[in-house]
Amino acid sequence: MADVTQPAEPTNLAADQNPAPFSFASVELQPLPHLTDTAPDHRSQPNPLDKNPFFHPSEGFYVSPGDVILRQIVYDLSGTFPAHSPHLVYHRAGPRRRVFFDPPAVRAAVVTCGGLCPGLNTVIRELVDGLWELYGVRQIFGVTAGYRGFYSTEPVELSPKVVHNWHKRGGTALETSRGGFDLDKIVNAIQNRGFNQVYIIGGDGTMRGAVKIFNEIRRRKLNIAVTGIPKTVDNDVGIIDRSFGFQTAVEMAQQAISAAHVEAESAVNGIGLVKLMGRSTGHIALHATLSSRDVDCCLIPEMEFYLEGKGGLFEFLEQRLKENGHAVLVVAEGAGQGMIPRTDAQKEERDESGNPVFLDVGGWLKSELKNWWAREHPGELFTVKYIDPTYMIRAVPANATDNSYCTLLAHSAVHGVMAGYTGFVSGPINGNYAYIQLEEVAQAKNEVNTKDHKWAWIRSVTNQPDFVRR
Amino acid sequence: MADVTQPAEPTNLAADQNPAPFSFASVELQPLPHLTDTAPDHRSQPNPLDKNPFFHPSEGFYVSPGDVILRQIVYDLSGTFPAHSPHLVYHRAGPRRRVFFDPPAVRAAVVTCGGLCPGLNTVIRELVDGLWELYGVRQIFGVTAGYRGFYSTEPVELSPKVVHNWHKRGGTALETSRGGFDLDKIVNAIQNRGFNQVYIIGGDGTMRGAVKIFNEIRRRKLNIAVTGIPKTVDNDVGIIDRSFGFQTAVEMAQQAISAAHVEAESAVNGIGLVKLMGRSTGHIALHATLSSRDVDCCLIPEMEFYLEGKGGLFEFLEQRLKENGHAVLVVAEGAGQGMIPRTDAQKEERDESGNPVFLDVGGWLKSELKNWWAREHPGELFTVKYIDPTYMIRAVPANATDNSYCTLLAHSAVHGVMAGYTGFVSGPINGNYAYIQLEEVAQAKNEVNTKDHKWAWIRSVTNQPDFVRR
Amino acid sequence: MADVTQPAEPTNLAADQNPAPFSFASVELQPLPHLTDTAPDHRSQPNPLDKNPFFHPSEGFYVSPGDVILRQIVYDLSGTFPAHSPHLVYHRAGPRRRVFFDPPAVRAAVVTCGGLCPGLNTVIRELVDGLWELYGVRQIFGVTAGYRGFYSTEPVELSPKVVHNWHKRGGTALETSRGGFDLDKIVNAIQNRGFNQVYIIGGDGTMRGAVKIFNEIRRRKLNIAVTGIPKTVDNDVGIIDRSFGFQTAVEMAQQAISAAHVEAESAVNGIGLVKLMGRSTGHIALHATLSSRDVDCCLIPEMEFYLEGKGGLFEFLEQRLKENGHAVLVVAEGAGQGMIPRTDAQKEERDESGNPVFLDVGGWLKSELKNWWAREHPGELFTVKYIDPTYMIRAVPANATDNSYCTLLAHSAVHGVMAGYTGFVSGPINGNYAYIQLEEVAQAKNEVNTKDHKWAWIRSVTNQPDFVRR
Amino acid sequence: MADVTQPAEPTNLAADQNPAPFSFASVELQPLPHLTDTAPDHRSQPNPLDKNPFFHPSEGFYVSPGDVILRQIVYDLSGTFPAHSPHLVYHRAGPRRRVFFDPPAVRAAVVTCGGLCPGLNTVIRELVDGLWELYGVRQIFGVTAGYRGFYSTEPVELSPKVVHNWHKRGGTALETSRGGFDLDKIVNAIQNRGFNQVYIIGGDGTMRGAVKIFNEIRRRKLNIAVTGIPKTVDNDVGIIDRSFGFQTAVEMAQQAISAAHVEAESAVNGIGLVKLMGRSTGHIALHATLSSRDVDCCLIPEMEFYLEGKGGLFEFLEQRLKENGHAVLVVAEGAGQGMIPRTDAQKEERDESGNPVFLDVGGWLKSELKNWWAREHPGELFTVKYIDPTYMIRAVPANATDNSYCTLLAHSAVHGVMAGYTGFVSGPINGNYAYIQLEEVAQAKNEVNTKDHKWAWIRSVTNQPDFVRR
Repeated sequence: MADVTQPAEPTNLAADQNPAPFSFASVELQPLPHLTDTAPDHRSQPNPLDKNPFFHPSEGFYVSPGDVILRQIVYDLSGTFPAHSPHLVYHRAGPRRRVFFDPPAVRAAVVTCGGLCPGLNTVIRELVDGLWELYGVRQIFGVTAGYRGFYSTEPVELSPKVVHNWHKRGGTALETSRGGFDLDKIVNAIQNRGFNQVYIIGGDGTMRGAVKIFNEIRRRKLNIAVTGIPKTVDNDVGIIDRSFGFQTAVEMAQQAISAAHVEAESAVNGIGLVKLMGRSTGHIALHATLSSRDVDCCLIPEMEFYLEGKGGLFEFLEQRLKENGHAVLVVAEGAGQGMIPRTDAQKEERDESGNPVFLDVGGWLKSELKNWWAREHPGELFTVKYIDPTYMIRAVPANATDNSYCTLLAHSAVHGVMAGYTGFVSGPINGNYAYIQLEEVAQAKNEVNTKDHKWAWIRSVTNQPDFVRR
Repeated sequence: MADVTQPAEPTNLAADQNPAPFSFASVELQPLPHLTDTAPDHRSQPNPLDKNPFFHPSEGFYVSPGDVILRQIVYDLSGTFPAHSPHLVYHRAGPRRRVFFDPPAVRAAVVTCGGLCPGLNTVIRELVDGLWELYGVRQIFGVTAGYRGFYSTEPVELSPKVVHNWHKRGGTALETSRGGFDLDKIVNAIQNRGFNQVYIIGGDGTMRGAVKIFNEIRRRKLNIAVTGIPKTVDNDVGIIDRSFGFQTAVEMAQQAISAAHVEAESAVNGIGLVKLMGRSTGHIALHATLSSRDVDCCLIPEMEFYLEGKGGLFEFLEQRLKENGHAVLVVAEGAGQGMIPRTDAQKEERDESGNPVFLDVGGWLKSELKNWWAREHPGELFTVKYIDPTYMIRAVPANATDNSYCTLLAHSAVHGVMAGYTGFVSGPINGNYAYIQLEEVAQAKNEVNTKDHKWAWIRSVTNQPDFVRR
Repeated sequence: MADVTQPAEPTNLAADQNPAPFSFASVELQPLPHLTDTAPDHRSQPNPLDKNPFFHPSEGFYVSPGDVILRQIVYDLSGTFPAHSPHLVYHRAGPRRRVFFDPPAVRAAVVTCGGLCPGLNTVIRELVDGLWELYGVRQIFGVTAGYRGFYSTEPVELSPKVVHNWHKRGGTALETSRGGFDLDKIVNAIQNRGFNQVYIIGGDGTMRGAVKIFNEIRRRKLNIAVTGIPKTVDNDVGIIDRSFGFQTAVEMAQQAISAAHVEAESAVNGIGLVKLMGRSTGHIALHATLSSRDVDCCLIPEMEFYLEGKGGLFEFLEQRLKENGHAVLVVAEGAGQGMIPRTDAQKEERDESGNPVFLDVGGWLKSELKNWWAREHPGELFTVKYIDPTYMIRAVPANATDNSYCTLLAHSAVHGVMAGYTGFVSGPINGNYAYIQLEEVAQAKNEVNTKDHKWAWIRSVTNQPDFVRR
Repeated sequence: MADVTQPAEPTNLAADQNPAPFSFASVELQPLPHLTDTAPDHRSQPNPLDKNPFFHPSEGFYVSPGDVILRQIVYDLSGTFPAHSPHLVYHRAGPRRRVFFDPPAVRAAVVTCGGLCPGLNTVIRELVDGLWELYGVRQIFGVTAGYRGFYSTEPVELSPKVVHNWHKRGGTALETSRGGFDLDKIVNAIQNRGFNQVYIIGGDGTMRGAVKIFNEIRRRKLNIAVTGIPKTVDNDVGIIDRSFGFQTAVEMAQQAISAAHVEAESAVNGIGLVKLMGRSTGHIALHATLSSRDVDCCLIPEMEFYLEGKGGLFEFLEQRLKENGHAVLVVAEGAGQGMIPRTDAQKEERDESGNPVFLDVGGWLKSELKNWWAREHPGELFTVKYIDPTYMIRAVPANATDNSYCTLLAHSAVHGVMAGYTGFVSGPINGNYAYIQLEEVAQAKNEVNTKDHKWAWIRSVTNQPDFVRR
């Protein structure tokens, strides 16, 4: 080991180096809209939980307005730390000592928008259960078929009896749809029906709609609380640790990867190819890869890759086939979109949000792989089995981890709304449930940071190429 | 609402109240033993990952010794915050730029002790894979049958090929046993076999043993790294967020609760009773309860409860049977131990650690329930179905969430050991993998804090009694 | 191979030996009660299926009264075959061209009695669906809580909407109980409520009750059809191929066996012990053993066994532990009852049917195994892990095979009852659904024939002792 | 009830009508090739099972050459029964008292060909276990990668240790491929490698190849036994009751149907569309439909259907959407092939067997459905979610029912081959394992008989159109 000439790195900075003091001048508490912002004279009342016969709130039960959670918790002490920047903190979620709403006067509406996600029904069920069992609310309504349901269909009455077994079922019992957002019609309907609590469950487009609804309600100076519950199986929503249904999706993806692995192993030069959800982010693909350990290479939207040449996918697969006789690829649906040739029609085509439509990266990869092999190894056996498990993943009920998460999420939202917060989102930050401004969440994006330790590390686990041309 | 006379509480402290500045005088970085502590002249070498043909560590890949994680991240700004107390921080886990060990010279030993836990085989597999694939280590051995295996059996050679499918199997392929700890014999064996990396996977007793081995190795001034990987399906280990296998156990517990629920629902006055693991802590019982939502009452060791009288379990069940015709109870194995009558023999009996043996709280509760009903409702139908799913829970393979966790855990350990750290444990703190002194972990305990928001909150979800006599 | 002196046995009897002609003098068609037996002047009507707008019964759709199924289908041509004995045949199940009941006049009652079994809810659901969708019956009632429900509770109205998702749930949505059989009260209630079709789902005791109800109805000359649907997860009912829920139980038992196997494999001299359902028959134990292939020895009620001495269980286990280091035992709950010491109280104790109560063979075996090892191998490691998965097996929903079976079973019953048959049971004979006299089924018993090829063969698969002392 | 003028049909023919005697002049025992056909002087030897220390074959253990199974077991007594036609019977499978092969001289080869099917690995494992454990055979080889493996790769040695956990894994551990059949090369290789038992597992093409190998071996007068084990997840093989893996496939298909159902239910006018395996037969589609009960219409190759007009699919779906708001379609991959427009290239394209290639009926139907709706209901919400779960179904391990079946199947084959039978197939006939001439099986086809009670009945369960234009 001729090159070992340096001393071991100091490993214990605190002891060895006396780092510069690490301090915060102050904290910056993220603002959170409250109904009293527009109704300053409204009188609060004691939390009805005080009177629950079986349940006596103990000291420490209620969360105070000063309970906060730090957002950044990882630092490099050896770096150039901006010593006096304020520290971002968020309000902790939970029941408050006094509430804004008088339970008999509450008329709550729940709506689900966009595609399916494991846990949707659990969230709905727990909103109903939380409002009914904890706060004694009795007027709870489900708005069916997404945003358009506000103005086009009659809401359905919900109660613990109605929602009893919903958490055991996939999908949404309230039905869902895309689009149908008409701000005026929606806010008029909310007013006309007398709703004063609106729980909106949906993806990023839905959250942007919820912000508009919140703003319009503020403009009209209505005592109506609006809360958003982000639903994105892709886990692409920012600030919060993860979105509901994500762990279930990763669990279910194992079945597809396992099948792809079996197909690949049972063939001569077999490739198993699985396309997983993730239009702009590769979280499901990544975590499914880490969980499975049967995957040779994982391709995500956040990372460029290339097929041909040194350091490319084909070279890598060539080697894995040589070593093991088979290989498994996982590709997120949004990966490689720039590489897939588009017909003129496809170039024009836009989705509802005006973005170019997504092409099937799995079908394209399968065909590219076959062409490559036929070119390089004519006559030799080769098989690609392509699996797209999307609907089988997203239509299942939530697993235990997600059921528990959805339960706490829904109860967080109920506690926050009852306390009078509005225009907010509930969600875990570093493992603790917090309230976050809706607008902030609607703008945030959670991408895989390929420059971060985590991604590099994951890449080291799969031992796959970095697709950096050299 | 006559009593509503107070104004709404201020909800936005930052805006409204200008809280006192929140600052840290300095951070206190937890010390971490390193092999250079006893071998100061040892020369490090560049991380072999630098030379991986497919894998080019990018900037930001290596973790520096200054990368730290904050431990406390939740504060009450309105409380009397000790403004200048140092902030506890821990070393972040991950690959280091320079390593202590020369891969061809490494002889690594892996041992599993104590009872089964989902994910054991994944951890073993990933230790092997990490050492072999990332660092090029080729001498990796499994010590079989627990601590006694060091001195009583031949170790088995491990390689990626040998461990290939282990993460799909429950249990431990290395076999395990309790006891057998003989410090001198073990350290002698480690020396004689030339092991210089020792990975010890086991429960709290095992971790206390690992501390002793570490200290003895220090005393003998040997260049042998020791790392502990806490294995406790109960999730009762402190400091780290959760232990591996826990999420899988909660998932599997759903089956038992669901069966109990079905049995209860299908009977007239049916009670389903499930005993779950947790000798001193109720984490599994609690999370299984939260995930299932079929549970009417959850009893844990951290909480006193009583059967008779006002606010007692029987009164509560009486009401639930009246309302729903059935009820489901979950009880952690360590709950209510003080209430179960002991025979004289049982009073004397001690387990291996000298503690009174645990009695079967499930069997006792079943019998108490039957007696109560026969006394209060003679002749009326009543059924108690009691399920103890312990082995069916702990003997399964890890689910996706735990597999991913075990993978990162094992790789964390490998990176730390290769870098020369010793006497440490890897584990997530607030969601980020950290290195923690082994001794600190061996002494810490993770109990359900029944004074905390979280437990109170969970209790509000199940709406069960607080068992506080009034 | 000195002893090989005989020629190969002739293998093709038909060609080689011209066996004696194999013939039946005639068939003996098992009688089947019909409502016209006591109401000879009743006029039938065309099957309402004729008028289904989407569904046009094709030729061959209706089953004729002459459609029959052979019972014995395996013969030994070389044996002394009773050449002219009549051949037992049974009526084939299915829709009849003409029906006895006028759909608007039908009032159907469904009741479930005894313990749980996978598929119960599917059977109920399909009775409702079959009556409603195919025959246009609109008055269908669920009698709750077993036999006593006829005279003690109000029946609940059932419709396809009510039973919509029942086949996805374990247990019985109608609730069940044991006992409560009071012939007069039951038949009076049937008359008073105007029920003219009674579907009784239950075990052997329930079927004997159904015979009495059928006879009493005959005695009273009422136009009320009674059909029994045998429910026995043990598969101990005779004549029919298998009972519903059995395949699901065998499937679920794999989990317990697999856990026992993992526990055994992960220990030094580990024994995994699983008790499976089967009071008088070992079908579940046998099939679970065959399906799993992890089982070293399977003990069933139909087979004597012994522990000590040559050819005994201990000797066998000793050898397996020596070879493999672990072993898995499966024991049916009714096995070895004669060997378990009974206290005086237990000798007196009787169950509801007057039989001696069953003792826990698993607990007894576990203790015997521990004593044996401590005696023979003092100080050596040894572990027995005992799993009793009973409720986790029987409370699950039916798997696909059983769901399909329950569906055809229920529709068979509906077709038979609508056609006017009564006092009968539906069930598959050699793979074809048949109608069998209720009384015949109530008396038949399906035991494992340990003298038969099948058992011997299964024994050869597990390669376990025959426990015949020599 | 004006039209009810006929008397009730006689229901008890035996009693009422004294049917003509039902008799067989003789039985016709299906011939079964035996190695002594070409080696008449070969001496048999006692079955080695006689000497198994733990296992003492009892009376009734060995199957005699006269043990037979009836094929036709359902009759219509009222029909014109051909009273004196001989009755087809088959040899019962099982161990024989004397065997042809001397275990130490056996060299057995196992090969898997064609696509994957649940249970493949169980069959391989049990062939190895049966030969090794029961008969003491020690030379067992796996031929890898299908037929071509005989002449192009080295066989791998198999033993119980090697195959230990294979039944828990999907796919085939021996690898498989299509084609590669070269009669001369294969038989030469069999001879050169000294194989005298050849176990061939594969689909109908593979079975036709096995017939050729058997004939060629006969022609060469070699003492080599050949047995075929039909592998077709579609269950399209004739004579035997069902093929292995089928029940598992039906079970797994539930996941896809359930997901389709959830997607359909959660949308406004939602259609869930699932394509299941079955090129020429609809068994999986049918049984999955019966098991699920969430399916509104099931389309299979054996049944014509049409989309437009009265009694067509669109009309039916229109009605279901009106009633329920959603509908689920299951289509077998071979259904509707004649209706899908083919491009000129597709008209020319042939698969390896020279048949026109299959087009994706699911994709076509999805597009037709969308066009229909856009035409008939412009602007109204409508969703079709299409799921193709093929690989996720066929790549799983066998479930309990199939594992048990595969075990008995493999042991049947081993017993038959050891006894000297050749050119045969093992499989259940009316629930009993039989030996059937390979050629007969290779030519038989098991289609859904749409004229039969069973199909009509199933159709009545789903209540779907019969697609007969009127």
